[in-house]
Amino acid sequence: MDNFTYCTPTKYIFGHGAENHTAEELLSISATRVMVVYGGGSVLRSGLLARVLLQLDDAGIYHCELGGVQPNPTDPKVREGIEICRREQIDTLLAVGGGSVIDTAKAIAAGVPYDGDFWDFWAGKATVQSALPLGVVLTIPAAGSEGSGNSVITLLDGMHKISLRTDFWLRPKFALLNPELTFTLPPEQTAAGIADMMAHIFERYFSPTADVEVTDRVAEGLLMAIMEEAPKVMSNPTDYQARANIMWSGTLAHNGICGTGRREDWVSHFMEHEISAVYGVTHGAGLAVMLPAFMSFMAHVAPAKGAQLARRVMGVTDEPDDTAAALEGIRRLKDFFTSLGLPVTFNQLGIDKPNIPLLVQKLHENKGERIGGYFTLTPADTEQIYRLAL
Amino acid sequence: MDNFTYCTPTKYIFGHGAENHTAEELLSISATRVMVVYGGGSVLRSGLLARVLLQLDDAGIYHCELGGVQPNPTDPKVREGIEICRREQIDTLLAVGGGSVIDTAKAIAAGVPYDGDFWDFWAGKATVQSALPLGVVLTIPAAGSEGSGNSVITLLDGMHKISLRTDFWLRPKFALLNPELTFTLPPEQTAAGIADMMAHIFERYFSPTADVEVTDRVAEGLLMAIMEEAPKVMSNPTDYQARANIMWSGTLAHNGICGTGRREDWVSHFMEHEISAVYGVTHGAGLAVMLPAFMSFMAHVAPAKGAQLARRVMGVTDEPDDTAAALEGIRRLKDFFTSLGLPVTFNQLGIDKPNIPLLVQKLHENKGERIGGYFTLTPADTEQIYRLAL
Repeated sequence: MDNFTYCTPTKYIFGHGAENHTAEELLSISATRVMVVYGGGSVLRSGLLARVLLQLDDAGIYHCELGGVQPNPTDPKVREGIEICRREQIDTLLAVGGGSVIDTAKAIAAGVPYDGDFWDFWAGKATVQSALPLGVVLTIPAAGSEGSGNSVITLLDGMHKISLRTDFWLRPKFALLNPELTFTLPPEQTAAGIADMMAHIFERYFSPTADVEVTDRVAEGLLMAIMEEAPKVMSNPTDYQARANIMWSGTLAHNGICGTGRREDWVSHFMEHEISAVYGVTHGAGLAVMLPAFMSFMAHVAPAKGAQLARRVMGVTDEPDDTAAALEGIRRLKDFFTSLGLPVTFNQLGIDKPNIPLLVQKLHENKGERIGGYFTLTPADTEQIYRLAL
Repeated sequence: MDNFTYCTPTKYIFGHGAENHTAEELLSISATRVMVVYGGGSVLRSGLLARVLLQLDDAGIYHCELGGVQPNPTDPKVREGIEICRREQIDTLLAVGGGSVIDTAKAIAAGVPYDGDFWDFWAGKATVQSALPLGVVLTIPAAGSEGSGNSVITLLDGMHKISLRTDFWLRPKFALLNPELTFTLPPEQTAAGIADMMAHIFERYFSPTADVEVTDRVAEGLLMAIMEEAPKVMSNPTDYQARANIMWSGTLAHNGICGTGRREDWVSHFMEHEISAVYGVTHGAGLAVMLPAFMSFMAHVAPAKGAQLARRVMGVTDEPDDTAAALEGIRRLKDFFTSLGLPVTFNQLGIDKPNIPLLVQKLHENKGERIGGYFTLTPADTEQIYRLAL
């Protein structure tokens, strides 16, 4: 187990009516002028946004709005938000939505008090030293951004999709999680969210650090819970209990608990980020394609962790060979993704002839010549992994 | 899954040399006048206390000391500490030790800013509304107090041993966890600590709340990790990796993550508190006696959770009947405790003829006529559970 520092100060309010605590929680962090960030039609259609704004009105909290955040959020919306916040002297941000909305709000939060261009943080040219406080009303269990200090933004100029990770500043002060708000998610979004949260666990599970039994067991437990609850939410979208288990799993998958004491991987995410930057696919669907491809490569070069996953999580009990066990685990994982209606190949993702050389080039341009935590990968390796997804 | 609010703001610094961050972390929470609370000889003999005090000196942090905290800590030491803090205008507490030391420091932290008697909080007559900030250098993985908002204190007048639970105020601001500091623990203390942390999980696992798959799986994962690492630390006390896994498990067992979304139980703890209050036994050893007794009772009246535990954690795969599976799981749990050198009966605990009527009387006097979360117990039931431990 490696040395680590771990702090998750986010206050979670979970369950029926959680969103009704919005004004109360904003007041508890001394919010007086709030910008509410949201995405497209669903929070308008459902009346959620109106209900939240009404709470703010009733509490006498000044607010302005930034709507229209798109999936795979980009820098222009962040810049627009920073400008409004400065003009309106906003002291607190409230994200009402899923990962794209929260990540945009985080980027704005970091950008407002910073003299330079907010992208400096994502480009690695500066470190976040302060940020506006942020609250979240979560509507999509997937990205785990409600409990993380991370934010993924795409720079339109060059389509660079980059994840920024902070230990403290970008962690939300509070996150309100009502599973009922996820009842109306389209099935493909529910499924993509499930792939995303599983990926957040896999990226930490595929670690070169030895002797991390406690973190492994927590990760395996979360994976088993997700795989048990997922079919229930797919077949009955208003199954509150299954939705609740999935929602809380999504938060725990990414609040850092599965990464304590070890080096993480994140290759599947990096490789998917290039796909969604270039082809605009849904992140979780892209992950359902890249995860098995990544694991298949690893089954041959470093099979230990994949074999452990197969045996402890995927129910592969009768295969003594590590590579064979890992491959059987991957087969079952693909079957599971397929059962949720997720793609597991480029073709199923709607990309007939992916420009793999371009993806490899951008990947290593953004992340360096050698990438990976579990196993170090060259451009030749990552090309092979992309090809395993054909 | 029940509605819940969950917030664990404690900053954990874990690994080699973690205690070297003491002054730095104290400064980061603006400490200027610190009282250092500790127990008996081990922190003196090992030089740990001297090293910590030297850091404070070097950082120019004023400090005074309160040593001599005993296991099963009592109110006089708390009162002494409160008096010193007020006289010395202490603004921050630092606990260097295990659960008894931390719990004493927490009680002092709550008592200093309170006008009435600190015991009011434990007696349920008042609610903690403020407290001095507290940092921890942990030396015993067991009580989990370094990550919890709880504190167990015994009132000498009547020997009332009571656990106070707060959501926020008594959670440490930081906890420094270096597994090397646990290398020199006597084997019986290591073993008792393992029983204690497992109990913290069981008390949350035995829940009447349905549909808590995610929390169940996390709890089961932690139990499996502890049971895998425990024999290693017993046979090789300086096995850093095993000590690290046990130490972090002890924190996660009690920082609340295993209780999210459900009603908890705590009967085994309450029943053990009466034993250690009357007979002065080690808390963890008392738990190793009471847990199997409690589970044996439940195997007959509410076997579902015990059967799930047996099947998922204890490896009982071939027993379709819930009661029989639960009983086989308990047999294996007792074998496990015995293998660590722990007692599983009153007799092995050194109590030949326990005064069971007295224990039952004090239990219900302190906790009410009906107790329990998993299953409601009358005095006749708790008497039977105590007898199952004979």
